[in-house]
Amino acid sequence: MADARQYLKIDGQFEMVRGEITEPSIAYETWGTLNEAGDNAVLILTGLSPSAHAASSTTDHSTGWWEDMVGPSKPIDTNRFFVICVNSLGSCFGSTGPASINPESGEKYRLDFPVLCLEDVAKAGHLVVKSLGVDVLHTVVGNSMGGMTALAYTLLFPGKSQRLVSTSSAARSAPFSIALRSLQRELIRKDAGWKDGHYAEDEPPATGMLMARKLGMITYRSAKEWEQRFGRERATDDISSGKSGPFGIDFEIESYLEAHGRSFINAFDANCYLYLSRAMDLFDASDHGGSIETALALTGLESALVIGVETDFLFPPHQQKELATGLEAGGVNVTFEILDSLQGHDSFLIDMDRFRPVIGEFFGDS
Amino acid sequence: MADARQYLKIDGQFEMVRGEITEPSIAYETWGTLNEAGDNAVLILTGLSPSAHAASSTTDHSTGWWEDMVGPSKPIDTNRFFVICVNSLGSCFGSTGPASINPESGEKYRLDFPVLCLEDVAKAGHLVVKSLGVDVLHTVVGNSMGGMTALAYTLLFPGKSQRLVSTSSAARSAPFSIALRSLQRELIRKDAGWKDGHYAEDEPPATGMLMARKLGMITYRSAKEWEQRFGRERATDDISSGKSGPFGIDFEIESYLEAHGRSFINAFDANCYLYLSRAMDLFDASDHGGSIETALALTGLESALVIGVETDFLFPPHQQKELATGLEAGGVNVTFEILDSLQGHDSFLIDMDRFRPVIGEFFGDS
Repeated sequence: MADARQYLKIDGQFEMVRGEITEPSIAYETWGTLNEAGDNAVLILTGLSPSAHAASSTTDHSTGWWEDMVGPSKPIDTNRFFVICVNSLGSCFGSTGPASINPESGEKYRLDFPVLCLEDVAKAGHLVVKSLGVDVLHTVVGNSMGGMTALAYTLLFPGKSQRLVSTSSAARSAPFSIALRSLQRELIRKDAGWKDGHYAEDEPPATGMLMARKLGMITYRSAKEWEQRFGRERATDDISSGKSGPFGIDFEIESYLEAHGRSFINAFDANCYLYLSRAMDLFDASDHGGSIETALALTGLESALVIGVETDFLFPPHQQKELATGLEAGGVNVTFEILDSLQGHDSFLIDMDRFRPVIGEFFGDS
Repeated sequence: MADARQYLKIDGQFEMVRGEITEPSIAYETWGTLNEAGDNAVLILTGLSPSAHAASSTTDHSTGWWEDMVGPSKPIDTNRFFVICVNSLGSCFGSTGPASINPESGEKYRLDFPVLCLEDVAKAGHLVVKSLGVDVLHTVVGNSMGGMTALAYTLLFPGKSQRLVSTSSAARSAPFSIALRSLQRELIRKDAGWKDGHYAEDEPPATGMLMARKLGMITYRSAKEWEQRFGRERATDDISSGKSGPFGIDFEIESYLEAHGRSFINAFDANCYLYLSRAMDLFDASDHGGSIETALALTGLESALVIGVETDFLFPPHQQKELATGLEAGGVNVTFEILDSLQGHDSFLIDMDRFRPVIGEFFGDS
């Protein structure tokens, strides 16, 4: 299958909040066509782990991570909009990050990569947008971490997006989510296989990645969903790798975590994960204005859609409300929706029957 | 300081749900005096980690883990009641468990200890109660895991307790809490220092225990409390042992988890932790009656107090409600309270201003 990724090579030094790198590349995909007025561009900024492949296209037929949302006649309608999805700076799906070669040394960056901030990710996305001939975005869209990056975009480049769609995100990281992500990172760092970031590509810190992913899965979904899906169902067959003496797998929920956790180990670079995870902790919109309220008055947005989910305890409804209220106080026309989805933080990837109409209506009205 | 613990040595074989052990000991403490009618005995069954030292006494002046609740003129009034607190079978504070010597082999049990069920813990508690000359308890009290053990007590020995106080517990473990505990156990088991249970006493699987405890602390409290206590406060000084390259401690919440997590490593035996944790997963009141409802009709209780906490997401309010409703349907006179405490699952140890009056009133009325 052909690869639909395109790359922006940034010339010279790329200044970051806490350092700089030389000639980074940013991978992205596009769908649809930029109109003559140049005012129909939509930028999608992703959560921690997705690539730029939000949807299939004539070049790459494989299903994208937001296939139900992006495409012809879909809520983000590629017949109408020129849609851009960027792989985050610091990630490992084509964009420069800790797993990339540092042109200065000829070696992988690993931990020599500067501390990553979501402002850096937003800035790299902005350069892609400009390189495509777009001055002002119709809408910047972000889910989870991507919602923070989208907010950073509007704070760094006020007036350069007319609209914002933020799903399951927040204006800053709260201590509960910081604690969980900090522990996830520690699980990887305490794995002897991490080797202070110097693991071989085919020998990742597998145990740490598996444990971190399991904790992620536990926090991305909801207790209510699992009660319905798994209850106290017993595992039918033990996954041998998870078994150890009298502490093997008893319950179906344990078996599920083991199977899905394992698929992540080789799917994401451990150092990239550490950098992106910490970037989320560090994000605080108030860094751009003294307080959340002051900052959110500076975006230059006309309107915004802020969506949260009742069962999301990682980015809970009150954080969505803080964002919505702050934007509204800043003069933005805000649509605020808390959805009754069962799938917790991950609902925006799963509960499409609830998310599609809300996002479709926002784009339809604009 | 003198030790107030007493010990029941059980003669011969002690039959467990899934095995048997020889001549186990059960450590316990008592406060107050059994009256002539023998009807003023209160048994307290603990959560996973506490010892039998619920409160200070003339023998042991040190502060107990429920000091504010148990004592003269306190809600569980030792002027009025003969109070017994038992260290759970399988634990490591005087009762026989995986860290004890197996008299058959002369070696520590370690993983040769039979799979532990809370029914076994309840049965051992019952033997202590009988050895003290008590036939029918005035009340059996249990917090968290202890609430499950208390329920097991009423199911195994119907009519042998007139009343039940269950705080922050449940009639069975839900998949969300199973997932979290299963991961905590895996964090210990995947620590090379665990050595399949064969670590030396002074060389515990420290990293695994620290990680498991941090995850515990995250889930025992509430996001709301941490928002108020820590917000985005930065750590003032890095705890060197937690630092690693560019992923040291940024936030006060990380520093807090590190400091408190470390204090647990040498305070609890890793194998005992694994056994007790799994015993919680395995508990399901419906094992005693085909369904929760059928089982809860068999306790022979006159009345019960079921307390939960709004911010507890490990034993959430709907599980408390399931327990309260089930007991009520079974003919028990139930008082059901969901408290507005901020400290999540741990509230029963901290938010004494809310817990004292509710428990005091229940005992005062009885």
